[in-house]
Amino acid sequence: MQLGMIGLGRMGANMVRRLLQGGHECVVFDMFPQAVEALVAEKAVGSSSLAEFVKKLAKPRAIWLMVPAGVVDKSIADLLPLLEAGDVLIDGGNSYYVDDLRRAEALAQKKIDYVDVGTSGGVWGLERGYCMMIGGPDAAVQRLDPIFKTLAPGSADTPPTPGRSVSGSTAEAGYLHCGPSGAGHFVKMVHNGIEYGLMAAYAEGLSVLKSANIGHREQATDAETTPLRNPEHYRYDFNLRDITEVWRRGSVISSWLLDLTAAALVKDPTLAQFSGQVSDSGEGRWTLQAAIDEAVPMPVLTAALNQRFASRGEADFQNKLLSALRFQFGGHHEKK
Amino acid sequence: MQLGMIGLGRMGANMVRRLLQGGHECVVFDMFPQAVEALVAEKAVGSSSLAEFVKKLAKPRAIWLMVPAGVVDKSIADLLPLLEAGDVLIDGGNSYYVDDLRRAEALAQKKIDYVDVGTSGGVWGLERGYCMMIGGPDAAVQRLDPIFKTLAPGSADTPPTPGRSVSGSTAEAGYLHCGPSGAGHFVKMVHNGIEYGLMAAYAEGLSVLKSANIGHREQATDAETTPLRNPEHYRYDFNLRDITEVWRRGSVISSWLLDLTAAALVKDPTLAQFSGQVSDSGEGRWTLQAAIDEAVPMPVLTAALNQRFASRGEADFQNKLLSALRFQFGGHHEKK
Amino acid sequence: MQLGMIGLGRMGANMVRRLLQGGHECVVFDMFPQAVEALVAEKAVGSSSLAEFVKKLAKPRAIWLMVPAGVVDKSIADLLPLLEAGDVLIDGGNSYYVDDLRRAEALAQKKIDYVDVGTSGGVWGLERGYCMMIGGPDAAVQRLDPIFKTLAPGSADTPPTPGRSVSGSTAEAGYLHCGPSGAGHFVKMVHNGIEYGLMAAYAEGLSVLKSANIGHREQATDAETTPLRNPEHYRYDFNLRDITEVWRRGSVISSWLLDLTAAALVKDPTLAQFSGQVSDSGEGRWTLQAAIDEAVPMPVLTAALNQRFASRGEADFQNKLLSALRFQFGGHHEKK
Amino acid sequence: MQLGMIGLGRMGANMVRRLLQGGHECVVFDMFPQAVEALVAEKAVGSSSLAEFVKKLAKPRAIWLMVPAGVVDKSIADLLPLLEAGDVLIDGGNSYYVDDLRRAEALAQKKIDYVDVGTSGGVWGLERGYCMMIGGPDAAVQRLDPIFKTLAPGSADTPPTPGRSVSGSTAEAGYLHCGPSGAGHFVKMVHNGIEYGLMAAYAEGLSVLKSANIGHREQATDAETTPLRNPEHYRYDFNLRDITEVWRRGSVISSWLLDLTAAALVKDPTLAQFSGQVSDSGEGRWTLQAAIDEAVPMPVLTAALNQRFASRGEADFQNKLLSALRFQFGGHHEKK
Repeated sequence: MQLGMIGLGRMGANMVRRLLQGGHECVVFDMFPQAVEALVAEKAVGSSSLAEFVKKLAKPRAIWLMVPAGVVDKSIADLLPLLEAGDVLIDGGNSYYVDDLRRAEALAQKKIDYVDVGTSGGVWGLERGYCMMIGGPDAAVQRLDPIFKTLAPGSADTPPTPGRSVSGSTAEAGYLHCGPSGAGHFVKMVHNGIEYGLMAAYAEGLSVLKSANIGHREQATDAETTPLRNPEHYRYDFNLRDITEVWRRGSVISSWLLDLTAAALVKDPTLAQFSGQVSDSGEGRWTLQAAIDEAVPMPVLTAALNQRFASRGEADFQNKLLSALRFQFGGHHEKK
Repeated sequence: MQLGMIGLGRMGANMVRRLLQGGHECVVFDMFPQAVEALVAEKAVGSSSLAEFVKKLAKPRAIWLMVPAGVVDKSIADLLPLLEAGDVLIDGGNSYYVDDLRRAEALAQKKIDYVDVGTSGGVWGLERGYCMMIGGPDAAVQRLDPIFKTLAPGSADTPPTPGRSVSGSTAEAGYLHCGPSGAGHFVKMVHNGIEYGLMAAYAEGLSVLKSANIGHREQATDAETTPLRNPEHYRYDFNLRDITEVWRRGSVISSWLLDLTAAALVKDPTLAQFSGQVSDSGEGRWTLQAAIDEAVPMPVLTAALNQRFASRGEADFQNKLLSALRFQFGGHHEKK
Repeated sequence: MQLGMIGLGRMGANMVRRLLQGGHECVVFDMFPQAVEALVAEKAVGSSSLAEFVKKLAKPRAIWLMVPAGVVDKSIADLLPLLEAGDVLIDGGNSYYVDDLRRAEALAQKKIDYVDVGTSGGVWGLERGYCMMIGGPDAAVQRLDPIFKTLAPGSADTPPTPGRSVSGSTAEAGYLHCGPSGAGHFVKMVHNGIEYGLMAAYAEGLSVLKSANIGHREQATDAETTPLRNPEHYRYDFNLRDITEVWRRGSVISSWLLDLTAAALVKDPTLAQFSGQVSDSGEGRWTLQAAIDEAVPMPVLTAALNQRFASRGEADFQNKLLSALRFQFGGHHEKK
Repeated sequence: MQLGMIGLGRMGANMVRRLLQGGHECVVFDMFPQAVEALVAEKAVGSSSLAEFVKKLAKPRAIWLMVPAGVVDKSIADLLPLLEAGDVLIDGGNSYYVDDLRRAEALAQKKIDYVDVGTSGGVWGLERGYCMMIGGPDAAVQRLDPIFKTLAPGSADTPPTPGRSVSGSTAEAGYLHCGPSGAGHFVKMVHNGIEYGLMAAYAEGLSVLKSANIGHREQATDAETTPLRNPEHYRYDFNLRDITEVWRRGSVISSWLLDLTAAALVKDPTLAQFSGQVSDSGEGRWTLQAAIDEAVPMPVLTAALNQRFASRGEADFQNKLLSALRFQFGGHHEKK
């Protein structure tokens, strides 16, 4: 079928490519004309303005927005005067699901359908397919099924879950209509929250392995340093490359993130090119806010988020205060 | 080659089966004669006493212990008078690596090699192969290579890590000599610590999804309940079976533990047969102790361990104290 | 000066008493006539309706609301038609500061001042005085100074902070104009967040002391129980009453909450009357939401909040999932 | 009575002074002759060698060690040949209680009593008195009662706990015989664990207040930054000096640590002289190890300890790994 794509960054461009490969027609637009040209060279239909973009789409139109979360509202505002009843607008980026609720209501008044799609797969999606979590009205989601089917990984590469009967669900194909408006981004939000926890679990464990050689190091013996009671227990020089590699095979903790961890360590086991200031792009925070509202304890995902904040220096003031207090009551001086 | 196996529980028996299928000869012993008989029926060589077991093994002997961690020392003490210089003893269970250091030293004085093997794979290992993390002296580990090769998953099922050159390492085959004595169980210990974190990440995220329908529920309006400000944000009835299924395909958080999560939810999405009292078998605690000694922050894995303790009622006293304090300063009564 | 008080619960009634003792005139109203009568008997001016209440107040009126957070908006809506430009409305309860911003703006349009006051002191405030954190316009706060001065503890009981020069601040007297609208409840919100952390710190530490006798207990020896390696290290039967008492004198951790902990343990060291289901009344959640927005890591206060959620059974589903997963990969059965 | 003191650092010297002021006789020794001389000038009896020190003490001797935990074993080894049956040795430093168990057993074989004393009070103890938690044999502890009574704060400054009957306990005077050997340092260890949690609670809360002005700051709008949805909620410039001061009076969170926090902020509200690398001196780690052995969940105190580790750069590797993973799956570049 025909799909219009706005936003041809890393994600949007590759999704267009996957759709073209799947036999769909794609009309594309981006602020940067070069991004449009690149895809036109690969058989997409280009456009140099929103007006032209909309005009080239057959009615009722299907338009996919793949733009930064902060720009979605403006994109919709720009598009809206050009759209008509029956059109469907898809937000495939990382919007906060609460914004979906607001947008769906506003657009429904103009009889325009709004579909929110959480898309996982990153830079690997072109090849592996995209896992999609979808929210919105049934008819609109149904109409887009050919698009989702092509973008998704399909069921071939992953063995079926034992005991799962033929369900009629599209979940086995890698996309799922999760519920009404916002449901797609809600599930994607939680997906990313889980991702934070998984990543931190590997990172912490590998740090314990990396420091397993402290028994070889000279120990400071001042009053501000806890002596290591059993240095003979910490004399291992572990090869993190080989360890992450072996865990990929048959272990309980094998995963795609472990595959990527192994790949990152192959590139450089010291990770010297990274500073360790870890960004967070919002979903972890929103997951935590949902957990707070629901009174669901979430110690692991919260710890992962807090650690990211601290990695960016956001704990500096509180740490200074701890040092100041230790000096106040005990006369302790900070170690240099 | 020939291997003696002591301990024919879930793990030991299946490992014997995989070895037999791989063309090895296995002499087996267990406290329960029926366990021995079952494997004899599958072509293992049985024995009805430790003495007979040892006698049936060709020198230098290779003996694998697959018994509970708490029984390893006794098993070694029972075996020791029957062994000779050159024999190798393998502890394939979940021993604390500090015990390995002690045992290796004691056995070395009798010129008996001690090899510690952390074995991951659980009840699925017979079919998928076992991921093995190995510690001990080079020659002994080298001699056992045919055994490890057969038990391990091999490299066929897992695609190679991009950029990893042919390394001569056995990691690609699913087993790895990680370092000197204790190294195998150290790496397995951290592996299980990571496992705790991964499991908790999925569990927390799915709980947030499960409670995403609280906006439908009647809200209490007493002074001890925080009002939900936006019930309209929490009106989703998510199907956890389908969501875990869709995440298995193409998403960043796909993993073997996710496969098992999906399978568990297929059996019963309410998990009604479980009480939620989660055991811990030691490795998480030991990982935390290593992290403390190394001064490595481990907030996520610690949170996962603390949550398990709390699941077993171990937080009850401190919670009572919190209620008592709230009553003291604010006259707050506990909600029933 | 004259003050009108609406809401004569534990907090409101005692504040009126403290004001009367300080020589102020109080006009009082409550939904329950008995609450009004009780204070009339102590020389307050009673009223049997909001209209009568407002009428008895001299213009420009000063009205203090001491009602549950969930009722403030309704109370304001009921009062508003009776008020006039120049009146001041004080919300002394535990409102979310974001609501203050909205209310202040709405009331300012009618030239009515809105002052938000976070009040700490609980059931002890009548005797010890109330610590007040105040937000709102300067002139309105200034006009209420005599009220705040009487309600506050004053500077007599607490020694001055070394090095603090005479500041002109009222902080030494126990009340503080913290900033514009919302500032009072913002500071009170964080105050309560800290309170959660302090309470949990004592509760956790005392639990470690309470369980310091596990070396005396029979240890289970099944595969689902981590053996205690050194039972001889845990043979202490500590007297928590005496320990909390001794910490009250000269120790680094002495505090008012410790005083209350000691008092609670004097009543009953087993705390048998409490179930350990710990409520949270919102401020901890809001503090966490502010920390998320600010990207400030808050691991301790978050852990305290998560623990409260879990105390109320909110972790049950995730714990069941952990048990289900352990059964999936390892065949582990839950301990009964 | 007479007491010998070895170790005249900040703590030891002030304890001698307090004892001298209380009418006791003190024989003192330190590696640094100047430290001895300074106290001789204040009427202590000096000694220039351990032999002279021991000789000047009347039998049975009472000797208090106030030396770094790492030096206690060596000090005892040096002293032992000079001691006789009936002497008592007190370790008043921050020893690990497990070492007490070992030492007490070894010394008991020579009929020398060993008493372990956890001492809280820091640089303020000379003036305020020292809170002492004591472990060891009854008779030895009893014999030292005059010393403890003088060192302790006494009951005058702290109001009695309501409902606490005259107990015969010395807890009201600020010292307590907590149990057999190791009990003193066990209780002190947990005391310090609690201290970590309390300190972190204040530090986190004050950080949230300090960052409450982020709504005034320019927001970055790149894809790696979560947009602040409501900057108008974060426009407070709080005065932390005044806020900590006001909390000291009548609030639920008043404490001695809050007094010190206020004092530290008076000195410099920016805390510019501190780098924020927070040491830990062992007790927090040991408390966590005890909690692990006891299976007591301790999320708050653990979070506080983890935060200290991270403040010293110990999370750098794991943070780099998170950045590396984000680059792997999403092509995310770290923000500079």
